[in-house]
Amino acid sequence: MKSKKSLLFTALVLLGVFGSAIHGFAQEEAVAAAVEAAAPDEDYLALKTQYGETFDFFTTSVLWTLIAAGLVFIMHLGFATLETGLTRSKNSVNILFKNVFIICMGLLTYAVWGFNAMYPGWEGSGFFAMGSPLTMEAYGNTDFSYGGTALAMTGWADFIFQAMFAATAATIVSGAVAERIKLGSFMVIGTLLVMFLYPMSGSWKWGAGWLDGMGFYDFAGSTLVHAFGGFAALAAVIVLGPRKGKYLEGGRIRPILGHSMPLATIGVFLLFLGWFGFNGGSVLSANPEGISFVFVTTALAAAAGGFSSIFFSWILLKKPDLSMALNGILAGLVGITAGADSVTLWSSVVIGLIAGVLVVISILFFDKIKIDDPVGAISVHGVCGIWGTLAVGLPFFNGGNEDLSFFTQLIGTLSVAIFAFVGTFILCIIVKALMGIRVSAEEEDEGLDIGEHGQEAYPDFAPASR
Amino acid sequence: MKSKKSLLFTALVLLGVFGSAIHGFAQEEAVAAAVEAAAPDEDYLALKTQYGETFDFFTTSVLWTLIAAGLVFIMHLGFATLETGLTRSKNSVNILFKNVFIICMGLLTYAVWGFNAMYPGWEGSGFFAMGSPLTMEAYGNTDFSYGGTALAMTGWADFIFQAMFAATAATIVSGAVAERIKLGSFMVIGTLLVMFLYPMSGSWKWGAGWLDGMGFYDFAGSTLVHAFGGFAALAAVIVLGPRKGKYLEGGRIRPILGHSMPLATIGVFLLFLGWFGFNGGSVLSANPEGISFVFVTTALAAAAGGFSSIFFSWILLKKPDLSMALNGILAGLVGITAGADSVTLWSSVVIGLIAGVLVVISILFFDKIKIDDPVGAISVHGVCGIWGTLAVGLPFFNGGNEDLSFFTQLIGTLSVAIFAFVGTFILCIIVKALMGIRVSAEEEDEGLDIGEHGQEAYPDFAPASR
Amino acid sequence: MKSKKSLLFTALVLLGVFGSAIHGFAQEEAVAAAVEAAAPDEDYLALKTQYGETFDFFTTSVLWTLIAAGLVFIMHLGFATLETGLTRSKNSVNILFKNVFIICMGLLTYAVWGFNAMYPGWEGSGFFAMGSPLTMEAYGNTDFSYGGTALAMTGWADFIFQAMFAATAATIVSGAVAERIKLGSFMVIGTLLVMFLYPMSGSWKWGAGWLDGMGFYDFAGSTLVHAFGGFAALAAVIVLGPRKGKYLEGGRIRPILGHSMPLATIGVFLLFLGWFGFNGGSVLSANPEGISFVFVTTALAAAAGGFSSIFFSWILLKKPDLSMALNGILAGLVGITAGADSVTLWSSVVIGLIAGVLVVISILFFDKIKIDDPVGAISVHGVCGIWGTLAVGLPFFNGGNEDLSFFTQLIGTLSVAIFAFVGTFILCIIVKALMGIRVSAEEEDEGLDIGEHGQEAYPDFAPASR
Repeated sequence: MKSKKSLLFTALVLLGVFGSAIHGFAQEEAVAAAVEAAAPDEDYLALKTQYGETFDFFTTSVLWTLIAAGLVFIMHLGFATLETGLTRSKNSVNILFKNVFIICMGLLTYAVWGFNAMYPGWEGSGFFAMGSPLTMEAYGNTDFSYGGTALAMTGWADFIFQAMFAATAATIVSGAVAERIKLGSFMVIGTLLVMFLYPMSGSWKWGAGWLDGMGFYDFAGSTLVHAFGGFAALAAVIVLGPRKGKYLEGGRIRPILGHSMPLATIGVFLLFLGWFGFNGGSVLSANPEGISFVFVTTALAAAAGGFSSIFFSWILLKKPDLSMALNGILAGLVGITAGADSVTLWSSVVIGLIAGVLVVISILFFDKIKIDDPVGAISVHGVCGIWGTLAVGLPFFNGGNEDLSFFTQLIGTLSVAIFAFVGTFILCIIVKALMGIRVSAEEEDEGLDIGEHGQEAYPDFAPASR
Repeated sequence: MKSKKSLLFTALVLLGVFGSAIHGFAQEEAVAAAVEAAAPDEDYLALKTQYGETFDFFTTSVLWTLIAAGLVFIMHLGFATLETGLTRSKNSVNILFKNVFIICMGLLTYAVWGFNAMYPGWEGSGFFAMGSPLTMEAYGNTDFSYGGTALAMTGWADFIFQAMFAATAATIVSGAVAERIKLGSFMVIGTLLVMFLYPMSGSWKWGAGWLDGMGFYDFAGSTLVHAFGGFAALAAVIVLGPRKGKYLEGGRIRPILGHSMPLATIGVFLLFLGWFGFNGGSVLSANPEGISFVFVTTALAAAAGGFSSIFFSWILLKKPDLSMALNGILAGLVGITAGADSVTLWSSVVIGLIAGVLVVISILFFDKIKIDDPVGAISVHGVCGIWGTLAVGLPFFNGGNEDLSFFTQLIGTLSVAIFAFVGTFILCIIVKALMGIRVSAEEEDEGLDIGEHGQEAYPDFAPASR
Repeated sequence: MKSKKSLLFTALVLLGVFGSAIHGFAQEEAVAAAVEAAAPDEDYLALKTQYGETFDFFTTSVLWTLIAAGLVFIMHLGFATLETGLTRSKNSVNILFKNVFIICMGLLTYAVWGFNAMYPGWEGSGFFAMGSPLTMEAYGNTDFSYGGTALAMTGWADFIFQAMFAATAATIVSGAVAERIKLGSFMVIGTLLVMFLYPMSGSWKWGAGWLDGMGFYDFAGSTLVHAFGGFAALAAVIVLGPRKGKYLEGGRIRPILGHSMPLATIGVFLLFLGWFGFNGGSVLSANPEGISFVFVTTALAAAAGGFSSIFFSWILLKKPDLSMALNGILAGLVGITAGADSVTLWSSVVIGLIAGVLVVISILFFDKIKIDDPVGAISVHGVCGIWGTLAVGLPFFNGGNEDLSFFTQLIGTLSVAIFAFVGTFILCIIVKALMGIRVSAEEEDEGLDIGEHGQEAYPDFAPASR
């Protein structure tokens, strides 16, 4: 290392900076408390006149919704790294590409069609509404007239928050179909799913459609987002079939290991973080009691899910399994999503504990019946999404709230799950017929990175010899 | 690549979306400024009546505390990636698993016992308080009656923010004991540490116990969190002993390299980010002067720590060392934590510069005396935690604030450090006797991933031949 | 696995925690709505008296600026991982080290000189102002007197937000000069660039200098940050020359592949996230209409950039290229930065779509003329920075706003780009003469990690044999 000269010159810079700092330090004297009462700013007064007395609460609420949108955005990075980490390195570029495409496509299609299809201001059946592009006019209104204190935000904030949710549906599917779906086919299926199917069932509840009319409750989307995504994934996986070499003769199951557990773990931590926005933002204002309670229930359910899944899978599989721990956290999060604002404190822990056990059983079950889901998306999002939605209907969890009915919850969650399953199944069948849905056996062996993209994810490292 | 057909179909979708966008574009006309003064919303007025005049400030403060909790949460991902990056790939699953366990366990035990043990509302000695589970009643109160303007938050927000801190103690230990501790033993030690030891010494200051009564000052935890964690780590490392092959005959020290410097760097950037919540959230309200000053001192100290550690280690080791640069940033952050709100502006730079030098000396010193700390946690958190706490007591740094005494700071930081050391030492001795604390030599060679988890972190890559 | 004993003991802990939880659950009864109207807190009233009627809006605005600073901070991790991922593993430590250095150095130099040089409160020419260290006095004022409603923040918040921007200039250069620049030389060039050049041209517009006087518009820095960085990078690359083996005889171009596409993708997602702070924070208050509109335009432009770049490069290169998709997103973000607050809704989509096409053409063009830019920084930041700045001047995009002139935009963006190019060129020539700028051919072959740092990024993995 001939770094002497480098060090000399760079040290000069150091000296300069440090010298100046010392200079500044010497200058620092007793701080005069020179702050005087400011005259009310005229611009501010104009804003206050415009928005009325509630301007400050409104401002904080909009800020929170936007930050929550940023947190939900980062869940897409969480999904990307989780899915990449839990699959083989020969398919990494493909998975990353899909996730990059989904967020771009999801935001655009939601602006062009989805948002207005999901929040139509029904004059119709409550089953289906036409979408349309956003316009400056409709969403530029930025006062409480948009939604009152219960939806304290501008139309813009509402749009961007919901748009970040929308792309999630396709991302959930992305993990389940990894390592064998044709790129173009996935892109078409994902686009149609996000653009048309997701807003449609979403409107049933959040768009004040028929399920909302029935009294169905789904706070932040255990059903509308997660069960939807999970059952869409199930349909796609059934049409696709399992990965080559996964299910061997004689009922033997070959584990196909993920290639990077650090990537997978990064993914789950980012998803956990993002969920504070997913659930916390669903309060739809900065109501201090609401958002702080939701943070607590969300965190405790996630912790409980990880906790029970760690010990339950340890007993069952005779080893402490990192993948199960990770999926347990996600299971707890999906489970609490439907009732994060309305269950009692310790209910959130129990809901999480049960979700963490359920997800382990479900993952083993789907593997048994040869439904090959590389990342466990169907169990995490589909099964635990239904669990969380049903839990809200049980008096044991909701503290005896009589507005909530188990039966209504059951109808709601099944309707959406079946809709997602059937809709996606038909979509996949059509795409399969038109352009094929599965890569060739050779491409599957070689990896989709070379086959679809002509690019490797890690060209500098030697592959393990196996 | 037979991507023509794929491209064709996906292009159709592109056209559709783009076409709709153009459609929307055409529709866009002059935006009518149709916003009228909104009538004060009735729900809002009810909230304002409930919370009183300070409602808007309260709302913003709660929001900030929750976001800060999210930022501290992400520090756990920072620790996980830092520790994983700085150790060998054969132990990565184990380290990730420990970090996943810690956050789950930490949140639950803090809800069940720790929070009430740490903030007891003393009627006792100021040394020890019983904990108890959270209840809906006690923390659901969501007005200023909880803590006035100085603690402007709901009980829920207070809990979740402090819970994120609690798990940090065990995480700091996790890095120091990496690559040789038995998983189950770590889980037991970590749980007892977070559940019982951390809240106890924490209550001495933040729970208004005996150190608080003396006038000890520790803004955000240079002592209560970092020195605590660092000296707990020291005790555990002494009981455990160094990794095999680290200290050779004749006093030679074999460097054991981390396996992924990108992971380690990601960890430090995330910790730096999270520290804005760790320190900024410790203002305990959204007081604009307070939080903005704390952001500045925190950032400058971190930068100064990295800066001085880069050049000091360059001179000492004759090469620009990335690990030292990373630890220098953390040293600066730990150093400023005790006084981020109360030192003068340029003091934060000087505190950071000194911390960056100290951490290099300390890491080399501990290696010399055969205390094997794979990630430098004892130096970063223990040594610089004490440094930062003492600095607050020096008139040179605190601008002559007479409420702060060097002697009191010394008593406070030593009390906590000794308590953490002795407590953890006893804990480790007991665990060692009951269930063993160190993996077998064969398992250490093979790696804990196979030995404890039966799973590799990177099954797709060939190991380097050495 | 002899994990039975471990499981037994850890299960005991589980039981203890779960038992306590059940205990807590049993205790949970109907929550008394015991919240009474709180008496206005005296501390709060003092604050309100101090800051005047606008205190609550001011508080929320300061909070947003600080969070935005945190988001811009995380862009530095985004750049670090993007640049590392898109280059070879033998240079990873070097690239990470540079990025760690830049953020430390950038924050310090901006405190010591840059901030006051960039926002001088001109009494001079509007071309150049002296800098000076921050003082407690000048920035501790924390009321609206600092900047009114349009700059609703404390001096501290203003400083930290702008400081996070400053280091970006050097980071952009860092990627373009990767894999061949001497470390010490880069550190000197980067420091002088951030400390002196960036604040100077920055002051022309944001410091109310001559470009601002002309009516030039650059909302969040398409020109002042990105075109500046991009053209500084171009100058450095020209002085340095291309990497060995990149341009072969007969005009053949050898692709030099990045070593980790997951790292690169993580980088782009983090940059996308950070951009919400970069653009959203540039509103300089929490004005709800302003920040929510900026979030929408920023997200849509990014999505559109990724979208068009995916399909355009697919058609051109006959394969779906992940790197191009990633750079397309960044192109859209850079493109919208100049006008995120002032273009119409669908203009943001069109600006992004065009940026996504431009960046592909530009990357191929620079490769053709043998300007070797490993990460595409010149195209993303330089070319799309100019594009975004010009777009704001076109009536088609700005909705006919007559305050904005294409000609003024052209003068502004070219002035800054030429200044950055010439200034950096001279700097590089001087550094080259004094200490050399390029590593030896042997070091370039071996990798800068060993050559400059004596450390490998991934010592556990076998390199691919090629």
